[in-house]
Amino acid sequence: MSDKFIHAVPNFSEGKREEVIEAVVDQLRDVEGVKLVGYFPDADFNRTVIELIGRPEPLKKALLDMTAKSIELIDMEEQSGDHPRIGAQDTIPIFPLKDITTEECREIAEEIGQAVYDQCEVPVYFSGENARTPEREKLSFIRKGQYEGLKEVAHTPERAPDIGPGALHPSAGAVIVSAGERPLVAYNVILGTDDLEIAKSIAKIVRGPSGGFTTVRAVGLKFSERNQVAVSMNMFDYDLTPLYRTFELIKNEAARYGVSVVASELVGVVPQEALVNSLEKYLQLEDFDRSQILENNLIGL
Amino acid sequence: MSDKFIHAVPNFSEGKREEVIEAVVDQLRDVEGVKLVGYFPDADFNRTVIELIGRPEPLKKALLDMTAKSIELIDMEEQSGDHPRIGAQDTIPIFPLKDITTEECREIAEEIGQAVYDQCEVPVYFSGENARTPEREKLSFIRKGQYEGLKEVAHTPERAPDIGPGALHPSAGAVIVSAGERPLVAYNVILGTDDLEIAKSIAKIVRGPSGGFTTVRAVGLKFSERNQVAVSMNMFDYDLTPLYRTFELIKNEAARYGVSVVASELVGVVPQEALVNSLEKYLQLEDFDRSQILENNLIGL
Repeated sequence: MSDKFIHAVPNFSEGKREEVIEAVVDQLRDVEGVKLVGYFPDADFNRTVIELIGRPEPLKKALLDMTAKSIELIDMEEQSGDHPRIGAQDTIPIFPLKDITTEECREIAEEIGQAVYDQCEVPVYFSGENARTPEREKLSFIRKGQYEGLKEVAHTPERAPDIGPGALHPSAGAVIVSAGERPLVAYNVILGTDDLEIAKSIAKIVRGPSGGFTTVRAVGLKFSERNQVAVSMNMFDYDLTPLYRTFELIKNEAARYGVSVVASELVGVVPQEALVNSLEKYLQLEDFDRSQILENNLIGL
Repeated sequence: MSDKFIHAVPNFSEGKREEVIEAVVDQLRDVEGVKLVGYFPDADFNRTVIELIGRPEPLKKALLDMTAKSIELIDMEEQSGDHPRIGAQDTIPIFPLKDITTEECREIAEEIGQAVYDQCEVPVYFSGENARTPEREKLSFIRKGQYEGLKEVAHTPERAPDIGPGALHPSAGAVIVSAGERPLVAYNVILGTDDLEIAKSIAKIVRGPSGGFTTVRAVGLKFSERNQVAVSMNMFDYDLTPLYRTFELIKNEAARYGVSVVASELVGVVPQEALVNSLEKYLQLEDFDRSQILENNLIGL
């Protein structure tokens, strides 16, 4: 059997109604060759993030079943929440996980996009590696105006769907499908202070737009349960900018305030490589072949 | 299907005759549920180390097939080499790898030992978790006098096999079977000097018997290909003494000589946990569940 595995992080636009969330997520349960790693509804966002892994063919089918169910149960004319979105099944991003290339994932994302339109009659925008124009590589461009704004301009060439007519689906909006090289890693570094200003200052140093790491977005947050603050990061490329580099930068910057780093935490799932490449730097490890990790030989056994 | 997996590191007493090595290793190839990760013949030692993983039942059978072949092809009356040994299939150590306890491995080692005697009529000594007496926990006690010496005293209660008569097999000697909590990790830290005395001094500081870490054995070695020296370690418990701790100690001690650490290297295989527990310390990671590592969800999929 092929040992190719894909990681998918689909997002659908319901984070409150438990029966809807469960009905959508149910499409991903007990599917041979697919594993639902976790799902994370957010009531304020009114959105659920799913972590899914699996072999390409069954994963594709599971993603289509999920999309059909989101579309059936979520009406964008009534949906509202704090997170930007353009459709019921808002995004379907996929990433290579094992023995598969980003290019193969790009092709699979094309197939998923076409199948979404063919089977559900919901128009599709391609993003990431599948973007038809440089602007569409980023979700923010595609989502400009959100569902409500996009439906007014979806007939214009600049904003029209990549598959489907120049119009959104009347209740389900559209779906954004993409392949990417690496998934986002959510990483928090917690400071030994309750001074939010310090966390905000350091976050500004760390994040790309204000002069920090191009691949990192960061905010300062209060961690009320521990009366401490944190630099909370979205790391978009753990290869270009490994975890250790942000951790050490934050430690150095915090020291300028006489503050120490008390802990860090990984939120949700993380590819093994995001851990190994940091340890490699700390231990100055040379010639470390990932197949030397015993467990990596278990996959497919 | 059960997702229990075992790691085995059998050693047999042939490291020169290629046709014998291949015939023994062949018993471990293309076995459903078992993966031969690697094998490492050493001509000076006249011994081959094997790294093997698999599900308990097929792994047990593969180990028995290997033992039968070693016994058939290796005559201890003629075998000689630099490494201490008491038999053709000298050792069969097993370790828990995934979703299995050390106690379960201990029971499986018992079954392996009994089957070796029943099927091959070669006596068995139990070591590690299976040792019948505290002295027999260590290989060095069982191996005292090696094959040649042991066969003279195998009739005495102190040295008799745990399974079998008070005598070694006339050509195959005996087999040492054991379960352990964690496998040995071989780890080298390379220094930016060619002064072997510095590596030797630091090795002495690091290793247990001379006041260092109880679970670590270390020697100073010349790395002639790079004109540098290394502290070469066998780490017997990466949980009690993680990699980072020996690395940092060596770095500190080397600095006293004005020498820096230029690299480190892991020799052979290593359990994922031996990497993750070091990174956890460096990043002060809190509440990191190993199932957050995406790839860990692939096993058995």
